Amino acid sequence: VASFLPKPVQKLIDEFSRLPGIGPKSAQRLAMHLLHSPDTRVREFSDAVSGLKHNVQFCSRCWNIAEGELCRICADSFRDQRQICVVEEILDVVALERTGEYKGTYHVLHGALSPVDGIGPEQLKVYALVERVQGLTLTEGTTETPVELRAAEVQGRGLVEGIEVILATNPGLEGETTALYLLKLLRPFNIKITRIARGLPVGGDLDYADEMTLSRAMQGRGEFF
Amino acid sequence: VASFLPKPVQKLIDEFSRLPGIGPKSAQRLAMHLLHSPDTRVREFSDAVSGLKHNVQFCSRCWNIAEGELCRICADSFRDQRQICVVEEILDVVALERTGEYKGTYHVLHGALSPVDGIGPEQLKVYALVERVQGLTLTEGTTETPVELRAAEVQGRGLVEGIEVILATNPGLEGETTALYLLKLLRPFNIKITRIARGLPVGGDLDYADEMTLSRAMQGRGEFF
Repeated sequence: VASFLPKPVQKLIDEFSRLPGIGPKSAQRLAMHLLHSPDTRVREFSDAVSGLKHNVQFCSRCWNIAEGELCRICADSFRDQRQICVVEEILDVVALERTGEYKGTYHVLHGALSPVDGIGPEQLKVYALVERVQGLTLTEGTTETPVELRAAEVQGRGLVEGIEVILATNPGLEGETTALYLLKLLRPFNIKITRIARGLPVGGDLDYADEMTLSRAMQGRGEFF
Repeated sequence: VASFLPKPVQKLIDEFSRLPGIGPKSAQRLAMHLLHSPDTRVREFSDAVSGLKHNVQFCSRCWNIAEGELCRICADSFRDQRQICVVEEILDVVALERTGEYKGTYHVLHGALSPVDGIGPEQLKVYALVERVQGLTLTEGTTETPVELRAAEVQGRGLVEGIEVILATNPGLEGETTALYLLKLLRPFNIKITRIARGLPVGGDLDYADEMTLSRAMQGRGEFF
């Protein structure tokens, strides 16, 4: 970009360019748009950015965003705390909440396993999930025992009633890997573990679907009422 | 969007959505990206937004952005002040400067004529352009005479040497209309008025070009050396 632009303008263009999905051209257009906007609009925008993290934190239970220690869903006594839907991102919670059907809680991993990008279980909220599940399966006060031992302790008992972990990671390579990893990790707890259905999207066209989706749609076929 | 998102997060999503070319989905992703960014990054961004108009104004001569009264180009004594390239937007100046070939000055209209959108000459920096051209053609101190009279005064004399207005508005309907309008308006000043060439883009494919472009490319053909 030509250096003749005033520094403050160039700086904002650079900042916009650093955001994901915004190329240098879009960054220029956005900066120009704000330059032509009234001062109050620009102030509203900068206030919104600087205020973003004001009173916003991650839920200590599910790692969703929250205004207090717990997010609105975890704090809601009408939500089933024994049903945990595991998702990759906060926006997945937003998407699922939009359906208005799910009445359980969530667990946000903040990513998916991706060895190529150096993302292992430690980079995700996996340990927090194991702890949560364990907390649900163990009602007695043996909270000092390490996780590994407690998992072994639970193992061998019958299926713990009423607890369900729904693995709702994305149906791509990384999401499937993550789901399989979590399945292995949570199996010792003898709880119900499910995976969201993969198949044809509603409104989709069968002959436009890729082979993987079609194959999943066939495998997952159900009785037709 | 689900209302369960904390207010500051929702507010930033709304602000992003108001920017041109950013849909609700992108706005969500951008807000989430900043939410996951370190506080210093978020502060850098909000500072860049709030500082955008700091010491930034429009050049009093050409309406480009400037840090002082004149923009860097108008203030540059090596640039030919008698050559004025008329463009629609500041970003057009950036694009032309990137070629590094043009040594004259610019005039930014801040838009193009569009009766449908209610944009007439009064909404653009047209009058400022006429005044500039007139200032160049008249060297004597008759600065008190109204524009219309002075245009008439100049009319009838021979072509004023060395002055050129290059109409570099976009080659679309609105840009062409604007160029034609300016041509009519500036003709009485007896100066050289040119229009940027329209033709096939370099690297373009002849059989992919639209009819208008092809027709322009044929009309504008030049001797081949």
